[in-house]
Amino acid sequence: MMKDIANATTPIELWFDFASPYSYLSIMRIEPLAQARGARILWRPFLLGPIFRALGWSSSPFVQQSEKGAYMWRDVDRQCRKYGLPWKRPSEFPRRGLLPTRMALLCAYEPWIGEFCRRIMRFNFVEDRPIESAQSVAEALAGLAPDACRLLAAAEAEATKLQLRNQTEAARRQGIFGAPTFCVGSELELFWGDDRLEDALAHAAAGGPPSRGTELGLSS
Amino acid sequence: MMKDIANATTPIELWFDFASPYSYLSIMRIEPLAQARGARILWRPFLLGPIFRALGWSSSPFVQQSEKGAYMWRDVDRQCRKYGLPWKRPSEFPRRGLLPTRMALLCAYEPWIGEFCRRIMRFNFVEDRPIESAQSVAEALAGLAPDACRLLAAAEAEATKLQLRNQTEAARRQGIFGAPTFCVGSELELFWGDDRLEDALAHAAAGGPPSRGTELGLSS
Repeated sequence: MMKDIANATTPIELWFDFASPYSYLSIMRIEPLAQARGARILWRPFLLGPIFRALGWSSSPFVQQSEKGAYMWRDVDRQCRKYGLPWKRPSEFPRRGLLPTRMALLCAYEPWIGEFCRRIMRFNFVEDRPIESAQSVAEALAGLAPDACRLLAAAEAEATKLQLRNQTEAARRQGIFGAPTFCVGSELELFWGDDRLEDALAHAAAGGPPSRGTELGLSS
Repeated sequence: MMKDIANATTPIELWFDFASPYSYLSIMRIEPLAQARGARILWRPFLLGPIFRALGWSSSPFVQQSEKGAYMWRDVDRQCRKYGLPWKRPSEFPRRGLLPTRMALLCAYEPWIGEFCRRIMRFNFVEDRPIESAQSVAEALAGLAPDACRLLAAAEAEATKLQLRNQTEAARRQGIFGAPTFCVGSELELFWGDDRLEDALAHAAAGGPPSRGTELGLSS
């Protein structure tokens, strides 16, 4: 199969939800790991809520099942210590984050998207503060985007709302049922969970067929 | 805290179900890894079915949710290639394995328990054959136990049936909701999933307080 000369490594799609603790781990870890592999990251924010409802759950499995929930908090705490990441269990879970999700979608191809996502995640999982307000999102944009007001208006526009619904629908069609999920290559190989980040990057580096980034007419 | 001089490393409890694909991975991997750490394995067979029912599911989440199920088969196949393990997706899932589970419980402290469990797992996940018959279990005992007939009778005895019900109830009380689960130290630190095997062993080697093996009056 022909490979894109300019970008020999297949990109890795990172599907994430700002409320998801394991998405926090991946968002904090992915950039240096991808860089070391020469892999481009395609940031794919989406909403887990509608996915869970489509699967017949009224909320996160971590909320619906107390044993699994209790274990998850313990496990994420341990993983953070293992990876040297700061961590504070949020007092609200799952935390509402519609506005930052729309903003991440709007700015998914900006060079600073990784830093924006890390800031939102730090608000949620380190500082334990709301992420839904325009003020929080503006704060996360500080120093990254020159015109936060314009971006905030665009994030609230009907077109962006529709785009996020489409994005979440696309996640469902790809068989995504949790976050983070990594999706690699035109064969849409799925890797579920922060534990599979390294495997997904190895798969991208091994170079499947070129990813759909270009096919979808997306530029980075 | 005082540590057992004769056995400095905290044992690791391996809670597993013979029908569980991720338990297959751990059962095939654990012995050399534990040996390298000097950690003793406590084999804890139990039944996931009653646990799932207690959590409000009628069957395995891999059966109840087609997306998750489809992903799991793909993921286990990849993991087997990664670890160099043989693998064939079983034609029956979850495969009934009451008799071998009772046998594993009965023989949990025999020096050959690891080999017995690997044989049963190979029947299920490599040879795709039933594991529930007395013949299969006798075959798995071949060359390990001198008197398979006596053991088979004991495995079918009311006392062993009761013991397995108690064991599964103990799993529930410890907060176990899936398999494999590793349980380390008197503080019952839980590690869920084959992905946490190495972390659980590291935790055991770091030496939590001595495990409950002795408290329960169990000998190895």
